[in-house]
Amino acid sequence: VNLQTLIGFRSRPKDDAERAAQQTLSLCRSLLSERGEFSGLRLAKECLARWQSLQGEELVRFLDLLAAKLSPDPEKSAEAANAYRLDPSPVNLARLIAVVEPLRQELFRRLNAAPGGTKALVSMRRYILTQLDAHPLWAPIVADLEHLLTSWLNRGFLSLQRIDWRTPAVVLEKLIQYEAVHEIQGWRDLRRRLEADRRCYAFFHQALGDDPIIFVEVALTRGMSGKVQPLLNADSPVLDIGAANCAMFYSITNCQEGLRGIPFGNFLIKQVVEDLGNELQQIRTFATVSPVPGFCAWLRSVARTAKGDAGQRLTDLTLRLAEPGWPEDGKKSELLKQELEPLCAHYLSSVRQGQEPLDPVARFHLRNGARLERVNWLGDTSPVGLQRSAGMMVNYVYRSADVERNHELYMKEYHVAVSKQIAGLAKKSLPEREEAQAKTPRRSA
Amino acid sequence: VNLQTLIGFRSRPKDDAERAAQQTLSLCRSLLSERGEFSGLRLAKECLARWQSLQGEELVRFLDLLAAKLSPDPEKSAEAANAYRLDPSPVNLARLIAVVEPLRQELFRRLNAAPGGTKALVSMRRYILTQLDAHPLWAPIVADLEHLLTSWLNRGFLSLQRIDWRTPAVVLEKLIQYEAVHEIQGWRDLRRRLEADRRCYAFFHQALGDDPIIFVEVALTRGMSGKVQPLLNADSPVLDIGAANCAMFYSITNCQEGLRGIPFGNFLIKQVVEDLGNELQQIRTFATVSPVPGFCAWLRSVARTAKGDAGQRLTDLTLRLAEPGWPEDGKKSELLKQELEPLCAHYLSSVRQGQEPLDPVARFHLRNGARLERVNWLGDTSPVGLQRSAGMMVNYVYRSADVERNHELYMKEYHVAVSKQIAGLAKKSLPEREEAQAKTPRRSA
Amino acid sequence: VNLQTLIGFRSRPKDDAERAAQQTLSLCRSLLSERGEFSGLRLAKECLARWQSLQGEELVRFLDLLAAKLSPDPEKSAEAANAYRLDPSPVNLARLIAVVEPLRQELFRRLNAAPGGTKALVSMRRYILTQLDAHPLWAPIVADLEHLLTSWLNRGFLSLQRIDWRTPAVVLEKLIQYEAVHEIQGWRDLRRRLEADRRCYAFFHQALGDDPIIFVEVALTRGMSGKVQPLLNADSPVLDIGAANCAMFYSITNCQEGLRGIPFGNFLIKQVVEDLGNELQQIRTFATVSPVPGFCAWLRSVARTAKGDAGQRLTDLTLRLAEPGWPEDGKKSELLKQELEPLCAHYLSSVRQGQEPLDPVARFHLRNGARLERVNWLGDTSPVGLQRSAGMMVNYVYRSADVERNHELYMKEYHVAVSKQIAGLAKKSLPEREEAQAKTPRRSA
Amino acid sequence: VNLQTLIGFRSRPKDDAERAAQQTLSLCRSLLSERGEFSGLRLAKECLARWQSLQGEELVRFLDLLAAKLSPDPEKSAEAANAYRLDPSPVNLARLIAVVEPLRQELFRRLNAAPGGTKALVSMRRYILTQLDAHPLWAPIVADLEHLLTSWLNRGFLSLQRIDWRTPAVVLEKLIQYEAVHEIQGWRDLRRRLEADRRCYAFFHQALGDDPIIFVEVALTRGMSGKVQPLLNADSPVLDIGAANCAMFYSITNCQEGLRGIPFGNFLIKQVVEDLGNELQQIRTFATVSPVPGFCAWLRSVARTAKGDAGQRLTDLTLRLAEPGWPEDGKKSELLKQELEPLCAHYLSSVRQGQEPLDPVARFHLRNGARLERVNWLGDTSPVGLQRSAGMMVNYVYRSADVERNHELYMKEYHVAVSKQIAGLAKKSLPEREEAQAKTPRRSA
Repeated sequence: VNLQTLIGFRSRPKDDAERAAQQTLSLCRSLLSERGEFSGLRLAKECLARWQSLQGEELVRFLDLLAAKLSPDPEKSAEAANAYRLDPSPVNLARLIAVVEPLRQELFRRLNAAPGGTKALVSMRRYILTQLDAHPLWAPIVADLEHLLTSWLNRGFLSLQRIDWRTPAVVLEKLIQYEAVHEIQGWRDLRRRLEADRRCYAFFHQALGDDPIIFVEVALTRGMSGKVQPLLNADSPVLDIGAANCAMFYSITNCQEGLRGIPFGNFLIKQVVEDLGNELQQIRTFATVSPVPGFCAWLRSVARTAKGDAGQRLTDLTLRLAEPGWPEDGKKSELLKQELEPLCAHYLSSVRQGQEPLDPVARFHLRNGARLERVNWLGDTSPVGLQRSAGMMVNYVYRSADVERNHELYMKEYHVAVSKQIAGLAKKSLPEREEAQAKTPRRSA
Repeated sequence: VNLQTLIGFRSRPKDDAERAAQQTLSLCRSLLSERGEFSGLRLAKECLARWQSLQGEELVRFLDLLAAKLSPDPEKSAEAANAYRLDPSPVNLARLIAVVEPLRQELFRRLNAAPGGTKALVSMRRYILTQLDAHPLWAPIVADLEHLLTSWLNRGFLSLQRIDWRTPAVVLEKLIQYEAVHEIQGWRDLRRRLEADRRCYAFFHQALGDDPIIFVEVALTRGMSGKVQPLLNADSPVLDIGAANCAMFYSITNCQEGLRGIPFGNFLIKQVVEDLGNELQQIRTFATVSPVPGFCAWLRSVARTAKGDAGQRLTDLTLRLAEPGWPEDGKKSELLKQELEPLCAHYLSSVRQGQEPLDPVARFHLRNGARLERVNWLGDTSPVGLQRSAGMMVNYVYRSADVERNHELYMKEYHVAVSKQIAGLAKKSLPEREEAQAKTPRRSA
Repeated sequence: VNLQTLIGFRSRPKDDAERAAQQTLSLCRSLLSERGEFSGLRLAKECLARWQSLQGEELVRFLDLLAAKLSPDPEKSAEAANAYRLDPSPVNLARLIAVVEPLRQELFRRLNAAPGGTKALVSMRRYILTQLDAHPLWAPIVADLEHLLTSWLNRGFLSLQRIDWRTPAVVLEKLIQYEAVHEIQGWRDLRRRLEADRRCYAFFHQALGDDPIIFVEVALTRGMSGKVQPLLNADSPVLDIGAANCAMFYSITNCQEGLRGIPFGNFLIKQVVEDLGNELQQIRTFATVSPVPGFCAWLRSVARTAKGDAGQRLTDLTLRLAEPGWPEDGKKSELLKQELEPLCAHYLSSVRQGQEPLDPVARFHLRNGARLERVNWLGDTSPVGLQRSAGMMVNYVYRSADVERNHELYMKEYHVAVSKQIAGLAKKSLPEREEAQAKTPRRSA
Repeated sequence: VNLQTLIGFRSRPKDDAERAAQQTLSLCRSLLSERGEFSGLRLAKECLARWQSLQGEELVRFLDLLAAKLSPDPEKSAEAANAYRLDPSPVNLARLIAVVEPLRQELFRRLNAAPGGTKALVSMRRYILTQLDAHPLWAPIVADLEHLLTSWLNRGFLSLQRIDWRTPAVVLEKLIQYEAVHEIQGWRDLRRRLEADRRCYAFFHQALGDDPIIFVEVALTRGMSGKVQPLLNADSPVLDIGAANCAMFYSITNCQEGLRGIPFGNFLIKQVVEDLGNELQQIRTFATVSPVPGFCAWLRSVARTAKGDAGQRLTDLTLRLAEPGWPEDGKKSELLKQELEPLCAHYLSSVRQGQEPLDPVARFHLRNGARLERVNWLGDTSPVGLQRSAGMMVNYVYRSADVERNHELYMKEYHVAVSKQIAGLAKKSLPEREEAQAKTPRRSA
């Protein structure tokens, strides 16, 4: 199945849905065929409204058409590319670029001119992403939208805004709605997260209005926090920020499903580190309180596959973790800690998927240039926290002086920056002890 | 000479300028090679600063490199296009698009993320445009910038702002600096143009800050103005806008040379017509007071080429126009008017370049859907006005009910919408009388 | 006991509290004795801080001193007044005014210059008002503050702002906190009250920042609402405002206890009527949905004092109202309605306290120029509504054309403007029927 | 002549002007007699409009009435004051205050509620001030307005705003119009005064809108400026403010004639010193570049009255100053400097009017707590500068650490704070040398 097949397949309208889809495509073609700059916004508004009115099968058919009919012409593309190969002149280049760019992109640009256009396009991409498994031929639509949205929501066009209790309610309710890492339990919880010892920043884009793109929540603390529950406690006392020396990034949330795959988090964290550093001279440490979402799953998988004594011990560990109540049992907890902290350090610093760390959160922060700093036992005692990472949380530190170098080493050779504590812990982990042992005999032989 | 030749030609650095250019390109490659989303803005800032520091020959060499080295690879392009021809699958399409898009575009997107990036890119394009005749191989750079800027400055991302005496001085001084149609003679002149019986609107984009993209000046008048000097008189009394019934667009200025070729005027006029219509119910007529910049040049050219009696009479006309003082001589002026008004109506409605009107101002407004309404004798008695159009000004009317249809007829068959008065005048013009005569005998034969 | 006694009484400091009070007064005198305009704000800030730090008995003693020591000198006042009587010259007038103005007023003006000064003074007045019964000699302090605050919070200095879901949360949470008429049940309830078919406006003063002075809540409805519960239902559907023709004022709340006695409500209602009338041409009726807070209390009191048959019937009524569940019993409710609606109309239009209506809400709206329009049976079925007014609500209508005249007639002769319906109802009420009967026999005699 | 005489005199309307005045007064009484809080703004607007429409004699008569009829009643005032003397109770005090307050004040408060009310009242006061010499009985009106405006424009209600090139033109043109110390020569001059090495701040009040109350112009310089012409040079290069270490206050202008006598300058200077000190850590010295407006007049007067040798020398000085061209003649200038600088130091530090310095500028800054720092020879070579102070300018320094103490010493004992340099100079002045000599013989005798 390819795009051309689709074209053939859709050549004759068969039913009402097909007719609605064809009519919408026809309107899109009008918008494209006009020299749009002279037609004003009427057609763009109409076209957008028509698209948004499509329901169920109508929409499916229309997206099929959009994927098939507005892709570049294969023959002309080949012709233009071959001409450019023979003579790479500016004229041939211009022609090649023009022929290869899908008409969809121009269509989306013209739709975007209508009021609410950007929002509508983001929302379309969200819908298509949810249907992509069932409709793989829509991939080019997703790609075209991603291409344009990446360009339009370029860092240079975003504005960073501080969110606090003076922010309009229409924005605040979106934080409550979007927060994905540590759910906000209503307005009282939100208010605590915006008190004087907290900071919240979001990226906005003019065309998305009050709807944030991404936001980060920061707690100003005395000493680096290892536990997240105290930070989330709505009744906790407000710290005098004069006494704070750490900025703990405890939640970062991408708000727009329709922008999935377009990265904003890295820019946001770095900007906030810079701004907070300028504003509050007393803050020396910028670090996250992060989950280790893949730890337990990894542990179970190695327990299954490991052999001999090691396999036995790992399986034993997973069984102990499955017993309810261990976190409250000081002795059990301590014994688990002895084994799990080293395993966690090992997991984060050495276990890979391809060349990058297996853990997605680790991947994100390490790629950004952060350093894996500390494992915190019982850092997140929520059910999810216990289930995903045996309650462990970790800190990644963003040190301005090192971020560049860490990032470059990571990009070049996937080097993972870790603190001495983490390095020491990892060495004590079962896999690394085994490996060390495995090497030793050979040497002694 | 083609882009590949250039690549070969520049393969070995020869001197200091070449070295500086190569180093800058190398920095650009770093910015590109990094997975930019994770490198923050440092590299973008550095790269931008380096580029902006290039002087004279260094800049020339760098732009040569930029044109040559960051264009798509001809071989790979052909290969990808041929693969897409054989199998137009989403994957092949994605690959083709990726290969054909010049790396320059991604470079510009990443540069744009730096503070001041958009301004810098607009300024670069302005520079390159001025040098394009001498450096035709830079055309792809211009094209890439145009492509991106058109997308970034999409109508949906522009904000329309009213300019008045409450506007910050930093913006107002730019109007004084940019106004190209009827120069603003200092602050006192500007203040009159922003009084209660005037309107001024501009498009702004967040990334360009206080620097307007385009602005239009409107006078609210009683009756349609045919003469521009009274509108420009800084000492004229301010009209009570309750008494006004016309909105006269007497000046529209594109501010940014670096955005040449990207159309904004059409959107601006239509938006202002709509907004003013909503705000001031008493305004019934929206019209321009426009110059006819190509009239005299055209007249001289037909006078040179026309034969017989007609040629004689046209030559005679041009001679009389060359005599100084005729505008003040009532009788001479009246005689000229009898002949020139019809010729002007004919010139605007029937004289073509290709299929579109020869006159550039006519082309712009007619394409937008306006109607050519009236010729105004001695509408612009400035030296330039006399020289370009024998002092005539015309009105183009934007009637909401007709704009769409006019525009469509124009786009479809280059139909020029004119008032009865204009149609009547044109028929009396020498060329149309001759043509009519030429036809008559044949019929009678 | 008079102010002078107080002065004598406090002549020797006796204990710590007295000492703190004396020291604070001394600081006040410094602030006064300096030619304050040249001392900057240091002293004002210090004085304010000292005052605010006073606790319990310290504060009581200080307010005693403030009442006694900074009042005008009786001897000098008499002397200046007698001089002015003998020779009412500008100089003698100026002297009299200067001598009679309490130094407290100048003290408050200078304190007000400090950041947060106005807020602090409003807060002081609130405190003193709560203590006035126990400390009647503090009345002059209250009066001086009222005099200044009335002048400072003059209508000309207030700004009217619309409150909606774009308003900062810091303001919205104050609405939740202050709303006194129909309590706001959290953010969800508030959000419904700020939807598209609602309006909320508040007066703000720059010196009070985000803290509103007074706010009014309005529902845009189709037809005049007689029942308040539907308006308060957070789940009610949002009306398309194009279909609305009435603006129902269902709640008006004075926010600042410290401003008690300073009227803002009248200005607010009239401004909102004017603004809404301009904004929404389709709104023809501006009316309140108001409680009748004094009705049941009045009914019980006349039942106690009325004699004979009437007394019996009124007592019977009060007993039937005391039975729980009557509102749900259609028959009982209908029988009560027949008697109570006329009584309510009578109560509001004819029962007086002095010359003005006894009911405080009636007093407020009738004085403003509104007309008593309609009694609504079971308009407020909340426990409080049933208890205060047997569940009845009334509408007062603000008709721009009549407001002036109604107001003037009210001010001149305490004329109460009522609709025909109300006038008819009142005539059917027991007291008016009795009165009519009482007159008839005499006539017939 | 007193206010009562005026009352008698105006008892019968005599002519049209009198009638207009009486009618306006009658409208004022309506506004007063109504319980204004319930009448809305209609009456206030009408009353204000009527007043503003009065012309010539009408206005004179009206102001006569306003002075006479709305002053407190002499009999009632005396009665209330005597009652308060006998029993200084809160009730008697309240009554006394109520009787003595001129009804005018309440009238003005109610007028102020109308849109534009404050502006109108300021403008009325300006007019009356210009007529006060001819109409001394209007003094109470002026006093009442001053009382209210002082209270309304309390420091706590003013906002300090920075003025720069981003400020709306409507404000900037007012600076050009108002600047009284060193006239602004159009927009180019203004622009230089708002460059990066300058600061300009103004106080605004919401009710006066864009119209500033007072503004100050500051130059950031390297080293303390003694000469004003370089600061005023529109072509001077802009200093990198990183290199600046002094903030020179070179102009302070009260904008509103109608607010004459209400002090704002002291607050403005201190606030700006504080804000600039916080913003720019590198600024160590805050000082003025001030004229010595009374110096030459004083010199001439002492020259006239001094006897013997001293009189001769002073007369000689005045003659040399009267010769044109001396500032350009290095030798003459140097000789004058030797004598005039000491005289100027003496004049500013020791010559008094009553207990305060004779020089008005010195009085203002010394009272504020500044220190007289330095005399600058040829600091102002403009014609006015030469004529008033022989071209000398002086610096007053505001040192935060000393301002309080200087101010207190000045207020207590009229102590003038001077630098060592000034003290040394003054001792060398002719009068102080003579005085010293006069004392010496006596001691030696």
